[in-house]
Amino acid sequence: MKEYAKQKLPEEKVFKDPVHRYVHVRDQVIWDLIGTKEFQRLRRIRQLGTTYLVFHGAEHSRFNHSLGVYEVVRRIVDDVFHGRPDWNEDERLLVLCAALLHDLGHGPFSHAFENVFKTDHEYFTRQILLGDTEVNAVLKRVSDDFPEKVAQVIEKTYENQLVVSLISSQIDADRMDYLQRDAYYTGVSYGHFDMERILRVMRPRKGKVVIKASGMHAVEDYIMSRYQMYLQVYFHPVSRSAEVLLNNILKRTKHLYEQGYQFAVEPIHFKSFFENKITVEDYLELDEYLLVTYFKMWMKEKDPILSDLSMRFITRKLFNYINLNPEEEPERFEKLKELFQQAGVDTEYYIYHDCTSDLPYDYYEPDKETNRFPIFLEMPNGDIRELSQESFIVDAIAGRMKKDHKVYYPKELLMEPALDSNIKQEIEKLLI
Amino acid sequence: MKEYAKQKLPEEKVFKDPVHRYVHVRDQVIWDLIGTKEFQRLRRIRQLGTTYLVFHGAEHSRFNHSLGVYEVVRRIVDDVFHGRPDWNEDERLLVLCAALLHDLGHGPFSHAFENVFKTDHEYFTRQILLGDTEVNAVLKRVSDDFPEKVAQVIEKTYENQLVVSLISSQIDADRMDYLQRDAYYTGVSYGHFDMERILRVMRPRKGKVVIKASGMHAVEDYIMSRYQMYLQVYFHPVSRSAEVLLNNILKRTKHLYEQGYQFAVEPIHFKSFFENKITVEDYLELDEYLLVTYFKMWMKEKDPILSDLSMRFITRKLFNYINLNPEEEPERFEKLKELFQQAGVDTEYYIYHDCTSDLPYDYYEPDKETNRFPIFLEMPNGDIRELSQESFIVDAIAGRMKKDHKVYYPKELLMEPALDSNIKQEIEKLLI
Amino acid sequence: MKEYAKQKLPEEKVFKDPVHRYVHVRDQVIWDLIGTKEFQRLRRIRQLGTTYLVFHGAEHSRFNHSLGVYEVVRRIVDDVFHGRPDWNEDERLLVLCAALLHDLGHGPFSHAFENVFKTDHEYFTRQILLGDTEVNAVLKRVSDDFPEKVAQVIEKTYENQLVVSLISSQIDADRMDYLQRDAYYTGVSYGHFDMERILRVMRPRKGKVVIKASGMHAVEDYIMSRYQMYLQVYFHPVSRSAEVLLNNILKRTKHLYEQGYQFAVEPIHFKSFFENKITVEDYLELDEYLLVTYFKMWMKEKDPILSDLSMRFITRKLFNYINLNPEEEPERFEKLKELFQQAGVDTEYYIYHDCTSDLPYDYYEPDKETNRFPIFLEMPNGDIRELSQESFIVDAIAGRMKKDHKVYYPKELLMEPALDSNIKQEIEKLLI
Amino acid sequence: MKEYAKQKLPEEKVFKDPVHRYVHVRDQVIWDLIGTKEFQRLRRIRQLGTTYLVFHGAEHSRFNHSLGVYEVVRRIVDDVFHGRPDWNEDERLLVLCAALLHDLGHGPFSHAFENVFKTDHEYFTRQILLGDTEVNAVLKRVSDDFPEKVAQVIEKTYENQLVVSLISSQIDADRMDYLQRDAYYTGVSYGHFDMERILRVMRPRKGKVVIKASGMHAVEDYIMSRYQMYLQVYFHPVSRSAEVLLNNILKRTKHLYEQGYQFAVEPIHFKSFFENKITVEDYLELDEYLLVTYFKMWMKEKDPILSDLSMRFITRKLFNYINLNPEEEPERFEKLKELFQQAGVDTEYYIYHDCTSDLPYDYYEPDKETNRFPIFLEMPNGDIRELSQESFIVDAIAGRMKKDHKVYYPKELLMEPALDSNIKQEIEKLLI
Repeated sequence: MKEYAKQKLPEEKVFKDPVHRYVHVRDQVIWDLIGTKEFQRLRRIRQLGTTYLVFHGAEHSRFNHSLGVYEVVRRIVDDVFHGRPDWNEDERLLVLCAALLHDLGHGPFSHAFENVFKTDHEYFTRQILLGDTEVNAVLKRVSDDFPEKVAQVIEKTYENQLVVSLISSQIDADRMDYLQRDAYYTGVSYGHFDMERILRVMRPRKGKVVIKASGMHAVEDYIMSRYQMYLQVYFHPVSRSAEVLLNNILKRTKHLYEQGYQFAVEPIHFKSFFENKITVEDYLELDEYLLVTYFKMWMKEKDPILSDLSMRFITRKLFNYINLNPEEEPERFEKLKELFQQAGVDTEYYIYHDCTSDLPYDYYEPDKETNRFPIFLEMPNGDIRELSQESFIVDAIAGRMKKDHKVYYPKELLMEPALDSNIKQEIEKLLI
Repeated sequence: MKEYAKQKLPEEKVFKDPVHRYVHVRDQVIWDLIGTKEFQRLRRIRQLGTTYLVFHGAEHSRFNHSLGVYEVVRRIVDDVFHGRPDWNEDERLLVLCAALLHDLGHGPFSHAFENVFKTDHEYFTRQILLGDTEVNAVLKRVSDDFPEKVAQVIEKTYENQLVVSLISSQIDADRMDYLQRDAYYTGVSYGHFDMERILRVMRPRKGKVVIKASGMHAVEDYIMSRYQMYLQVYFHPVSRSAEVLLNNILKRTKHLYEQGYQFAVEPIHFKSFFENKITVEDYLELDEYLLVTYFKMWMKEKDPILSDLSMRFITRKLFNYINLNPEEEPERFEKLKELFQQAGVDTEYYIYHDCTSDLPYDYYEPDKETNRFPIFLEMPNGDIRELSQESFIVDAIAGRMKKDHKVYYPKELLMEPALDSNIKQEIEKLLI
Repeated sequence: MKEYAKQKLPEEKVFKDPVHRYVHVRDQVIWDLIGTKEFQRLRRIRQLGTTYLVFHGAEHSRFNHSLGVYEVVRRIVDDVFHGRPDWNEDERLLVLCAALLHDLGHGPFSHAFENVFKTDHEYFTRQILLGDTEVNAVLKRVSDDFPEKVAQVIEKTYENQLVVSLISSQIDADRMDYLQRDAYYTGVSYGHFDMERILRVMRPRKGKVVIKASGMHAVEDYIMSRYQMYLQVYFHPVSRSAEVLLNNILKRTKHLYEQGYQFAVEPIHFKSFFENKITVEDYLELDEYLLVTYFKMWMKEKDPILSDLSMRFITRKLFNYINLNPEEEPERFEKLKELFQQAGVDTEYYIYHDCTSDLPYDYYEPDKETNRFPIFLEMPNGDIRELSQESFIVDAIAGRMKKDHKVYYPKELLMEPALDSNIKQEIEKLLI
Repeated sequence: MKEYAKQKLPEEKVFKDPVHRYVHVRDQVIWDLIGTKEFQRLRRIRQLGTTYLVFHGAEHSRFNHSLGVYEVVRRIVDDVFHGRPDWNEDERLLVLCAALLHDLGHGPFSHAFENVFKTDHEYFTRQILLGDTEVNAVLKRVSDDFPEKVAQVIEKTYENQLVVSLISSQIDADRMDYLQRDAYYTGVSYGHFDMERILRVMRPRKGKVVIKASGMHAVEDYIMSRYQMYLQVYFHPVSRSAEVLLNNILKRTKHLYEQGYQFAVEPIHFKSFFENKITVEDYLELDEYLLVTYFKMWMKEKDPILSDLSMRFITRKLFNYINLNPEEEPERFEKLKELFQQAGVDTEYYIYHDCTSDLPYDYYEPDKETNRFPIFLEMPNGDIRELSQESFIVDAIAGRMKKDHKVYYPKELLMEPALDSNIKQEIEKLLI
């Protein structure tokens, strides 16, 4: 078994990658993991969910990103950490596997899906790693406890937190890859920073990774890129609008199922989700190809809400939005709902309050209690300091980003000839 | 009607594009076309079919590319041709629509699909443009004969061949976009050339587009990029291997249907294709999301060939290949087939000869009779000369590329423990 | 006269530019200005003075930059402002000329030179524009008052402040060009922002330029790039060290001249500067080729200070530095000087306090009284708001950058075998 | 001594480089060489001579390029060759020094200078390496014969031709750096190729470097880049026009000196060149700063030819050109000269035939006898084949580039009001 962990490919395999130029694979274990069907499934799940409906270039998959995270970690451990005192070469393969597999449990359109079905991709990551899967078979060949260790690293519970932090910290390989990759595919001019420089000044220290102070400006640039990517891409209001549709399609489907509605096309793949009896096998069947195929078929369902929402998603007739925080303007929000109801619209599905704080993205907030891995600088004299203490730029902006509240609604409603003109006028007043 | 053709959006719409930075839309007609369901469908068809199985970055869609072609033509007509003698501003909208819609009739994995079902995306482009579709409705609002004109431009039969050549010539917007776009998404370092320069030296002349001689070197670079992209990406043997699988899956499905095989999952969407009674509606239902979803389900079919080929495609267990031209080495090829049969393999599906000349890509061959639109240079004195007469580089390589013959087979066969060792040895000898 | 202003070149001239890809010239006036000897002289003055001694790539000239500023303004007025209500096409040529010529009065190594000789490049810009020069002759052909108008735009006194602000504001063509250009030539990964986007959302308004709010994030990125370029390049302590040498060489030369020192190589070109009787002709004789040639010859002067400093500059033996603010630690600074004197060193030339606030660079400080041109956003409803009121990122960092104090000294002193070991030890203590 | 060769810097030094991102220096010897005054002198010699008069971005120096060549070789030996059978680690420092110093003997505007004064930069490289210089002192500390060895590598006479070929072969670090660097600074879109890929497939073999066949397309791209750079940049007719001026200025100066002409500004630095008694010290005094300073002063010389030519160079009033090969059209050329003489022009200095074959650039000609180092591919089976045997692209173009003949002349002559109108007409007829 031991031998398998050390087995090298007869010749290094090289993937052409637009972000890192090449992804290099020398370990047989990594090669075998890439070939498993659970890993190949990530080709059918987009890295940025519905963002391609706003940034048409963002059609890249989690497969694409996962290879990138692996490559970033590989460069850190092979080109920078190798041979340094606080780095244990025995943990090299572990961290490479964890990097490659960190997104393994993600389902299609994770955010909306998990919201409706109360599933959790982290839970499924563990299930896939430890269950009866091709991935598990490969990992077990390394050693019996290897799947468990990989799971722990991904779950951040692994003992050596230095290993964990390469994948899950405020400046980890995951973030460094996706910021650059998402920038590349969307085509935005943000998201660029000097990763080569950052990698070169990373150092392993007991239980953490530190950045030599000489690399501080590159890290500032990385932090700024993150802010810009959140503002410009991840929190883009139109992309969130597509999420609203997704959410409501799934919610409606679940509701219809619970009501005993007879589907023209039976959602067999969703059954265990509706009934909350999900197995790993069921879960692995899901991908965005399947969901989109359902949505397309549901365009012909007789339930008008399901067919309308599906049509909207497939043909990109998204909801419009206004800036409105129901907590600050409760009356405006309630009045709007009331008017929509009067206009004959089901407000469960056709009006939606969304706030960026519900999104699974974080910006840099070093003080937050939950943040176990802030960014540490190592000063020339060996002192360790948290980044925002040294950088006036980071200190100035860390954690200061405002939440953005939007209310989504179908603007087509207002063009309905049947709509009472008084109601229309009142709605229009509230939408300004 | 006239008014719709000239209607501008209240504010220009801008798409962020990684290749051209921005795609600009000012015409209401263009905006409406983009919003049709037939055009949105192109989001579900990959530009490069199976190439993403070799170059993982190449996950971009024909939607993505179509916007790009539109933008290139828009720059030519608005920034370069506008106001020049031989350019008729009345044909501006026509060529923009044709650019945007030129790939409208493409189906999923076109190459393999058309091979098996004898369909033709050019035929369907016309059907979609002229049939009962959202696209047709938009085009008709311009004028009754506008859909027909757009179809003619795409089919190259439109009277003013200058308009045609912007989209279909040896240096058209289609090629200029896809070379750059495919290079961008695959990440290869070829495919770059100075398009801005080429655009600036393009001139409308009676019935054709010419390039001012001062831009010759930029055009040479474009030609070289094309060669490199063919050699490195489009003709990549592993990508062709995935095409072989696709082809054989579809062929097997059709065969099974014709044999009256009982599918566990009925291929309802294929029925009209099996029976060759295809309507536009059927055709438009197809996309790669649907096909891949079928393939995934067919992995569980009891027919061993269909389930094996489907599994191979979904989990990327591709065939291997050798260099072998059956015309040059007929005995070796026949012997190989014979041995495969002896080994119990159905050679209809498990051995496949493929030649690059069957691929839908062309390199520059000015002499070819079928090439109505070679590249013309306009010399300082006004003479028009075909590119290869002036450029020693282009003259040297034009049309000289060799065809590449490969024979594909499943290498797993040789690892079968049940395989007779004599047969195995004989096969191995032939594969070297 | 009028005709000359409108005269177009028979064919557009195009300069290949690494930053803007192409610089386009269509106006005869612009073409003629580029050909003047005063403008060609800018080829012999580096854009970043001594920075090439730290960033070896930064060898680009002010000629290079000036073409770039011209091109940025040309794109604004021709591609964005053209035809808009608040833009007066009659001022197009004026602002193009001002853009091209804005750095015309710069001398070699301006910062140090002006510091020692109390000259002022803005004064000389006016003198060159209005004096007996080739530039003046070209401008006068446009109209008699044209040279004066160009001078006013560059001096910011021209009546229409909208014109002025294209060249001199917090987001002008000058800054947009040099940030990108300096980033390009140094090779740093900062300095990039989406200029194309910013240009597209610029709008002429009465007396000012505004940015449509939809472009705010691109402007934030520009502001951040500026901060990073200051921190990383413009304020780089080693580059400032070369400035210290330059300053002291010139100071020493002046001192020697005033003392009646007999130069082996007479500094004839400096005479009028020593005697403060400078003519435009004298001034235009100067460039960095001449100064560096003097420095090389002065390496052989018998005055040990002049020859040592010259040798240091030419062979890049720069001073070292410590963080030390004499106002905060007056005793340490005085003690250091005292010890240097005891060590036999002339502290006039071998110890130097430098602060970034003395540098001719500004970061964004909207509140400052002297800042007549902050960045204005135009909100969707037409309101105009200053950038930092809308952008939390800019608000957070604007004006918050700390001044950086350094004291420069020759570390070679400490290696002198003749140096008293007590003095050496005391110095070393103070240098930590 | 041995120790010095192995001495590492306490901390790696890093130069920011726009082409290779970073240049890494770990060896004390390399660091010391960079600090010598002979190497620093290369900052004052442009890599591309007069090309900046056509491509204004091309202001980069040989210092800049020399660091780049060093870095490319460093990557080859440290990242690719290290540990491989045919590579001798003892030659690592040797090849690094040779790479860094290979251009050490270049003078200002080498091509024209060497043409007029019959000097030879290769001779001076040896003199500087072995003479009484700072560079020699550093090299000697490695070992007594080290300077000689470095000279041999640069002169291609070193025994192990594998070492030589890293710097001087058809695909050496010198070419790979300058193609990319010159492309970067000029801003042309040619000159790009995938160097990272090429480096990764380079292998040391007995007496040569081979490229693994899998990298062939990257090498093709490199070859094509070379052709394009020659055609577009190195052979650019306007850049050659500036060379003509340079050549004639120097020729005139020499002639005047020989005639005993009294210079207003004595060309003291040229004396030993006029008299052909050049020492290394004299040679090292020269740089482009000095020459340009002379040219500027010579604009005021009373000799009309010297002052006119100097003025032309400094203010960029270049000669025009026509396509004319005197061997093919001897009568036209002779007639032109005759007419120029009748017009009162000294044809020694005002008419000039130039052919690209006189330029110090080569394209790929594998058959040429003088080409000791063609490009070798290593096939999967271990066979070694010359590139053009395998690549149809390279085979097609190798050595096929035509020589370009131009005749240069001052077009201003034709605008002279004093010019006889018959002569003018006759000249004009010949110039078409």
